[in-house]
Amino acid sequence: MIHLCCHALPVRGKYKDISEKRCYKEQGHAGACEEFHYLSHLSQFHKRVADKIKRDATKTTGAAWSSEEAGPNRIDRWVMLQPDEVLLRYGLDMSILKQTVVAKLREKAAPYSDCMDAAVKLTWLAYQMPDAPECPPENKDYLERRIGPMNRSSTTCIVCRLPLSFSLFMNAQRGKAEIETAHSNPRAHNSENIGFAHRECNIAQGSKTLDEFYAWIAGIIERT
Amino acid sequence: MIHLCCHALPVRGKYKDISEKRCYKEQGHAGACEEFHYLSHLSQFHKRVADKIKRDATKTTGAAWSSEEAGPNRIDRWVMLQPDEVLLRYGLDMSILKQTVVAKLREKAAPYSDCMDAAVKLTWLAYQMPDAPECPPENKDYLERRIGPMNRSSTTCIVCRLPLSFSLFMNAQRGKAEIETAHSNPRAHNSENIGFAHRECNIAQGSKTLDEFYAWIAGIIERT
Repeated sequence: MIHLCCHALPVRGKYKDISEKRCYKEQGHAGACEEFHYLSHLSQFHKRVADKIKRDATKTTGAAWSSEEAGPNRIDRWVMLQPDEVLLRYGLDMSILKQTVVAKLREKAAPYSDCMDAAVKLTWLAYQMPDAPECPPENKDYLERRIGPMNRSSTTCIVCRLPLSFSLFMNAQRGKAEIETAHSNPRAHNSENIGFAHRECNIAQGSKTLDEFYAWIAGIIERT
Repeated sequence: MIHLCCHALPVRGKYKDISEKRCYKEQGHAGACEEFHYLSHLSQFHKRVADKIKRDATKTTGAAWSSEEAGPNRIDRWVMLQPDEVLLRYGLDMSILKQTVVAKLREKAAPYSDCMDAAVKLTWLAYQMPDAPECPPENKDYLERRIGPMNRSSTTCIVCRLPLSFSLFMNAQRGKAEIETAHSNPRAHNSENIGFAHRECNIAQGSKTLDEFYAWIAGIIERT
């Protein structure tokens, strides 16, 4: 258990009136308040990974297709909790989007605190990949007290359950990394429900929950 | 068994010098020579299905992403059999495309006759979906003599092995039909290897052969 500082930080940008930003350091910490201090080491030495964790934890995913109708790309997940009439005040007209696009955006919505907890969980998982860099003691202590003990090589793909290599963060095909942030239930975004998966596993899971996916493939095996 | 007319038909368009077009009616047929006479009924009453069969049988698939680098979209599969230097004469510069894009285009290549046989097979399969329209006797006779006896409700998804409903051709999400043309081996395009699949099944199969896919999901089941 850990008591967090939770000091409110200044929010900038278009959505500042409907956003919050807090300090996630431990209560009584030294130095300036920060949201992502536990990512300091990855930010310095594996920036792509740190950026991915922040982005996936806090933003809706990008549209896989590009068109006016595709709607806003990479928007703060908590903004998507606001009703249509509020979003309209911010220039986001949900009524012109296709229903399927609205549904996709809305199911990515999550409160700020869930997103922040998800980022901690993803960082904790990344450091437990077999070939992950050593986690500096001060970050490790924080992550372990937030989530639990860390064991090297214990992070597996949430879909196929095989170990995930940290190096896959670097491999990219057509701009897509071979590791994706994945959800046991794709319609919920929180630390319980989040993890990493091979890109092909995440694609195969699609919009199914993991339970649905396993039942589905078990049915296929039975019929073949 | 059936002896085909095979009379060469005039070819138009950019690639006419490296394309062929033949009559696929039976030898000694009445009326004009035609490539796709057995699709006459679907073309009239279910144009979307007939067009899909012709397109998927003869063209490379469209790029899922749009950019200059994505290369040519929906090109005749047999054109993709030509070496780079020939394609260059037709304004298709393969050397400026990413290797992954070239590989994707090249693996969709197939001789004209394989594409034409694939179209017959897909038509034969479509008419055997549980809720397919009645196949007119003259078309049915041709299809059965080309491929084999037709039984209502015998067409299943090649991936999940569940019956496929003809009505799924009409349902479309974001412009994508719920039925896709699929291949037991995604790197071969011929009548043995082709069939229909649910969109989600085809996506889950990805670039694996069906054998690889079944082995992969069996492994997942074992580990869960």
